[in-house]
Amino acid sequence: MNTYRQDIIFNTKERVELINITSRVQEAVLKSGVKEGLCLVNAMHITASVFINDDEKGLHRDFIGWLEKLAPYQKNKYRHNSTGEDNADAHLKRTVMGREVVVAVTKGQLDFGPWEQIFYGEFDGQRRKRVLIKIIGD
Amino acid sequence: MNTYRQDIIFNTKERVELINITSRVQEAVLKSGVKEGLCLVNAMHITASVFINDDEKGLHRDFIGWLEKLAPYQKNKYRHNSTGEDNADAHLKRTVMGREVVVAVTKGQLDFGPWEQIFYGEFDGQRRKRVLIKIIGD
Amino acid sequence: MNTYRQDIIFNTKERVELINITSRVQEAVLKSGVKEGLCLVNAMHITASVFINDDEKGLHRDFIGWLEKLAPYQKNKYRHNSTGEDNADAHLKRTVMGREVVVAVTKGQLDFGPWEQIFYGEFDGQRRKRVLIKIIGD
Repeated sequence: MNTYRQDIIFNTKERVELINITSRVQEAVLKSGVKEGLCLVNAMHITASVFINDDEKGLHRDFIGWLEKLAPYQKNKYRHNSTGEDNADAHLKRTVMGREVVVAVTKGQLDFGPWEQIFYGEFDGQRRKRVLIKIIGD
Repeated sequence: MNTYRQDIIFNTKERVELINITSRVQEAVLKSGVKEGLCLVNAMHITASVFINDDEKGLHRDFIGWLEKLAPYQKNKYRHNSTGEDNADAHLKRTVMGREVVVAVTKGQLDFGPWEQIFYGEFDGQRRKRVLIKIIGD
Repeated sequence: MNTYRQDIIFNTKERVELINITSRVQEAVLKSGVKEGLCLVNAMHITASVFINDDEKGLHRDFIGWLEKLAPYQKNKYRHNSTGEDNADAHLKRTVMGREVVVAVTKGQLDFGPWEQIFYGEFDGQRRKRVLIKIIGD
């Protein structure tokens, strides 16, 4: 069995951003040498997500507006923010979008449907954050 | 290490449907010959889900009604739909329900709790869609 | 390839509780002898979750309040509850929080970001429930 580990670092300009990381995960799969196996991609921070969806800008604005309705930014509303933070909403938004994806690796490639793309979802950005890629297989 | 790959194809009659696929995943585990490992089951389309819950028809209607409140179908409300699509809500619904499940394989079986069943959740159906099963282990 | 399986049992005092299980998963990783691989941790019950977030009590109260808004407890509102159950809301809450996490194992440890902790989320407690840990790797 073969395993490979890599992390990717982000410093976003905005508080909330959705960033396509598919090509970086594909590169990691190539470097790993794994032909058949599983690829885990997860946020290492608890106010960020890794998720799979479509790379369409209108849809991304829909996601961001929808998350703001489900879990609005409100500095003084959440108990977590009484600790001096203002990011409780980001913990909730990340929960809706998910921490991680697991993708099959087949014939040395990410085994994707036609529109699947991997995104890093940042909900409390403008500082250093990491994503982990771990690949296991043969 | 052993790996196995299979896909399942759906053509749903309705726009929204929840379909029990547990027996098809169990068959794939048997075919794989894997006794101890992990089984990934994921939607290959970004308006569909794979999730685990109870096979109870009332609960399924609750899920569908609840998702319609959280992310209502509205042809003219979402930016994504200005591309000519009408399925932005389906992208959001699928996000709540999840893209994938990872299930342990133990002694050649899906290692389930008493009520766990695997479902394909379609939110923009009436066309051809695929689910991927990937199993790795010994 | 090496595999390891263990379950953890809970009998919660409250209907809704979030319990930090990180040290128990870490012990399982040590027992497994796996140095490089993947660790799956999943609820075996369909009204409970396993998720990763921060161990901060205010945030946990935020999560519980937020879930109650998204999927309120209402004995007579859900179709599922006409079967004699009163836990339809718990099925929905668990869906928001997720059934499982997959964590990388690197150098014999859970490969975590700085604040990542694993929680069992109970939404219909006061009875016996199980969580499964399955580890595969070398």
